[in-house]
Amino acid sequence: MILSKGFWQTYKEVPADATIASHQLMMRAGLIHKSAAGLYNYLPMGYRSIRKVEQIVREEMDKAGCYEMLMSVVTPGELWQETGRWEKMGGEMLKFKDKADRDLCISPTNEEAITDVFRKTIKSYKDLPLSLYQINTKFRDEIRPRFGLMRGREFIMKDAYTFHATKECLDEVYDRMYEAYENVFNRLGLEFSAVVADGGAMADGDAKTHEFQVIADSGEDAIIYSNEANYAANIETAKTIRKVESAAKTGSMAEVSTPGKATIKEVCEFLKKNEFHSLKSLVYKARNDEEEKFILVLLLGDDELNELKLEKVYPGYEVTTATDTELKALGLIKGFIGPVEISNLDIVFDTQVDLNAAYVVGANKLDMHLENFVPKEVIKQIKTADLRLACSGDYTVDGKHQVELKRGIEVGHIFQLGDKYTKGMDATILDQNGKAMAPLMGCYGIGVTRLVAAAIEQNHDENGIIWPAAIAPYNVSFVAIVKSEEYKEKANELYKTLINSGLEVVYDDRKAGPGFKFKDADLLGLPLQVVLGERDHKEDGMLEIRIRRSGEKIKVSQEDLISKVNELLKEL
Amino acid sequence: MILSKGFWQTYKEVPADATIASHQLMMRAGLIHKSAAGLYNYLPMGYRSIRKVEQIVREEMDKAGCYEMLMSVVTPGELWQETGRWEKMGGEMLKFKDKADRDLCISPTNEEAITDVFRKTIKSYKDLPLSLYQINTKFRDEIRPRFGLMRGREFIMKDAYTFHATKECLDEVYDRMYEAYENVFNRLGLEFSAVVADGGAMADGDAKTHEFQVIADSGEDAIIYSNEANYAANIETAKTIRKVESAAKTGSMAEVSTPGKATIKEVCEFLKKNEFHSLKSLVYKARNDEEEKFILVLLLGDDELNELKLEKVYPGYEVTTATDTELKALGLIKGFIGPVEISNLDIVFDTQVDLNAAYVVGANKLDMHLENFVPKEVIKQIKTADLRLACSGDYTVDGKHQVELKRGIEVGHIFQLGDKYTKGMDATILDQNGKAMAPLMGCYGIGVTRLVAAAIEQNHDENGIIWPAAIAPYNVSFVAIVKSEEYKEKANELYKTLINSGLEVVYDDRKAGPGFKFKDADLLGLPLQVVLGERDHKEDGMLEIRIRRSGEKIKVSQEDLISKVNELLKEL
Repeated sequence: MILSKGFWQTYKEVPADATIASHQLMMRAGLIHKSAAGLYNYLPMGYRSIRKVEQIVREEMDKAGCYEMLMSVVTPGELWQETGRWEKMGGEMLKFKDKADRDLCISPTNEEAITDVFRKTIKSYKDLPLSLYQINTKFRDEIRPRFGLMRGREFIMKDAYTFHATKECLDEVYDRMYEAYENVFNRLGLEFSAVVADGGAMADGDAKTHEFQVIADSGEDAIIYSNEANYAANIETAKTIRKVESAAKTGSMAEVSTPGKATIKEVCEFLKKNEFHSLKSLVYKARNDEEEKFILVLLLGDDELNELKLEKVYPGYEVTTATDTELKALGLIKGFIGPVEISNLDIVFDTQVDLNAAYVVGANKLDMHLENFVPKEVIKQIKTADLRLACSGDYTVDGKHQVELKRGIEVGHIFQLGDKYTKGMDATILDQNGKAMAPLMGCYGIGVTRLVAAAIEQNHDENGIIWPAAIAPYNVSFVAIVKSEEYKEKANELYKTLINSGLEVVYDDRKAGPGFKFKDADLLGLPLQVVLGERDHKEDGMLEIRIRRSGEKIKVSQEDLISKVNELLKEL
Repeated sequence: MILSKGFWQTYKEVPADATIASHQLMMRAGLIHKSAAGLYNYLPMGYRSIRKVEQIVREEMDKAGCYEMLMSVVTPGELWQETGRWEKMGGEMLKFKDKADRDLCISPTNEEAITDVFRKTIKSYKDLPLSLYQINTKFRDEIRPRFGLMRGREFIMKDAYTFHATKECLDEVYDRMYEAYENVFNRLGLEFSAVVADGGAMADGDAKTHEFQVIADSGEDAIIYSNEANYAANIETAKTIRKVESAAKTGSMAEVSTPGKATIKEVCEFLKKNEFHSLKSLVYKARNDEEEKFILVLLLGDDELNELKLEKVYPGYEVTTATDTELKALGLIKGFIGPVEISNLDIVFDTQVDLNAAYVVGANKLDMHLENFVPKEVIKQIKTADLRLACSGDYTVDGKHQVELKRGIEVGHIFQLGDKYTKGMDATILDQNGKAMAPLMGCYGIGVTRLVAAAIEQNHDENGIIWPAAIAPYNVSFVAIVKSEEYKEKANELYKTLINSGLEVVYDDRKAGPGFKFKDADLLGLPLQVVLGERDHKEDGMLEIRIRRSGEKIKVSQEDLISKVNELLKEL
């Protein structure tokens, strides 16, 4: 693109609603244009990156044996009514009626649509496995769209769906897709983690699911990981252990006065104990259609509860914190709750609690705690479970590797769906014995436009974007700092040389000073800047290559330019 | 694609709603899947063709100096309200409200959206011309969607928009786009016509507009064309002449009794005259806010009126046929109307009428006509205009070339919009003198999915589709008629050889007879079929290439296979 003739401009102002780096930079660097809340037009400079991401995704999906198709953006309500999601999907699904008064929506996802295609074409186990994907526009009517492309309403997504006659086959294809995802993110040049995710209510017990997270400080998700152990998990599902010395008993269990000390911190400071030598007592209510019961959760004093883990201990129950009123009704005094002489609550110890060690616990009396509480000595039938929230500094469950916490942006999610949709939509096939069966499904998403934003969150500095070479809109900013006609001509020729060698080049031939041009080039953040400076060139006959990421400047002769640029691009 | 493992199947049944060949064949050949009325999923086999069309369009747009972008599918109502089209677009625009009660619609077209992008980026004439395009999903809520992809509700369209400071610049870019369109349709391998179209109410007088029509017998549009004269026009706008000998006067103008002869045909048979020696009298009403007047149109007896041409003679008026009641009120007798002694009507002669020749006309008396009516002798102030509908057998206006009539499917439309949108949306820029001006726009559409359907309408026979090579889903159907393990292995190897040479191949390795396989291959209609027949090969060691279009069969050795296939593909 020759800038004097092309269509690109940068902006100095940061729009008021742009609070994160990628949103600000995409607006300032002229990559996107806001049309309305959560609706963006992808301008030529931004759309090139989006298309490069699409192409890498497409190639890896094809390699993994998937066939590309395209489903309609508008889907009929009938399909969603079959699975009950017409009601369940909630407000994010934009529903409306057409002129003929038929229910329609703009697809937020396509499980129903693909299952409809499947049931009208596939009749036998012999035609399985089947893997289909599309790269298409989706719409979710977020009440509060924000963060630019990170949480827009309309977005581009790659969604793949696979169908299987057996769990073994599903697992095999799932693993192949997992690899394809790794290939995608590696090719994109992004630092990422594939984390074990929580299947949520939809998943049955052995359903696998992973989230692919692009690592970035601004990420909304917390990831517990250890490179050495090749372990990564969403903090909600992470299983780790901590290494702390248990306290030995120093005497009999006895009450101790702790006037006004209602928090772990206050009590332990007052009693001069480590916090992890006390137990935190939390009361929850578990409720289903039949009953309601209360749970006393015991954790090491400085640990936090992972509520998702507690929910899994009570499957089928809705689990919520007990209210103050409920605590009173149970005869419990907030700040002084403990496990001794409790009969009307389930008691669950976190596995991290040493059942033979001595702890400080609440005495269930105002301003009183108990010292030397040893679980095994006091509680008859002890129930334990992994309940604590993992954190940085923990160890992997084998105790060999310390884990760290990073923040990530979810850009991909792969998921074993089971037979929920094939059963719900009567998409049965004949198995080997000629009997009808509902095939198992997997689904595999990548947020294409979100990924571009995430790449920028991970790769930028105070001057602008720093594109990974694979998805930069162009390879090179060619900055001409020339005044004489002779050098303008030289610049034009050099541009031709660059593009004729197959490079994608933004040629800044605008009438503007070097400061202005370099500022724009840094903001746009192409991997390399090639500089023809008239004054310097007259002195030494050399060109300059600037590496955007490192700031390194390399002098190069015109003959060596192309090979040097290509060599550097391979590394970026 | 290896058919035993891939995702493709054909159907014997023609769906009840599929009435045209392309719709039937796309369904039967497994290219598309109907999701609801006018909503189609593009299956892998069909989507490959769509993407090939997209890529050819993209390359030619890029070559013409356009930049690709992508606008949101959902657009805010505000933009449409600015130009007044929120009301005017009518029911085809699918409007709805989002959760925050904002007006939205699914874009049926994007003039407003692109003008919004333009006004927020371009400020000076120096940045013009500007050419932007997108390939995107559009939606028009047709009441009666039909003909499959030909008139679906959701469809893929390429729309380009250009901006200019002067009419000269608009004309120049318009011509470049015209060429780009010719390149596109030539590369697609389609027989097409670029026809002068009618600008409709939107266009000012010198606004150029052309429709690109794919020639097909089933086309909805009639095109008048002469290859030799390089002339093509929509029948509504076509200007042609006919060559007929005028009748000389045989006596004075006199009444003649024509009892019960109320049509041209009846009168001329009765009087033993050529129909073109009579004049057809048609009465129309022209009406605007201020007045209402009646028009008597006179054409050669066997010509038809082109109502669009009449409307242009009365700009600003709504022109409709006079009702029987109105005729009576005017004192006119249906079947016997004529131009003599008429005072309360405008009289307009078609230019084809020889004003010095003698014609039979109605006498404005029941069962009476006039002979030897010579316009110049009777009518004082004669008004003439080109009013007749062109037809096959006419001549170009210079009289040198005879024209033919063909039927076409409109797949592209290029159009000079003028400043309607830039004015309407206050998208002004500064001109050379620093004064604000509203730039001129052009818009340029290609119906991508419709084009695939049109290509099939033009290229099929009773056995199925006959793809032009450039947009066939794959290049070759490889049909293996093998039984022994040895030959199955040979077929597998041959498939590898074919794909390793870069060819796109559908390998029919299914357990099925030759008849079944050839039927499917013909239906799918890839340009070439490569056949490995075990029996034949054992005899002569040769393979067979079948050309789908001609049915020709060519024996070829395995060594020559690839080069022969590539040679043939170039011609198809």
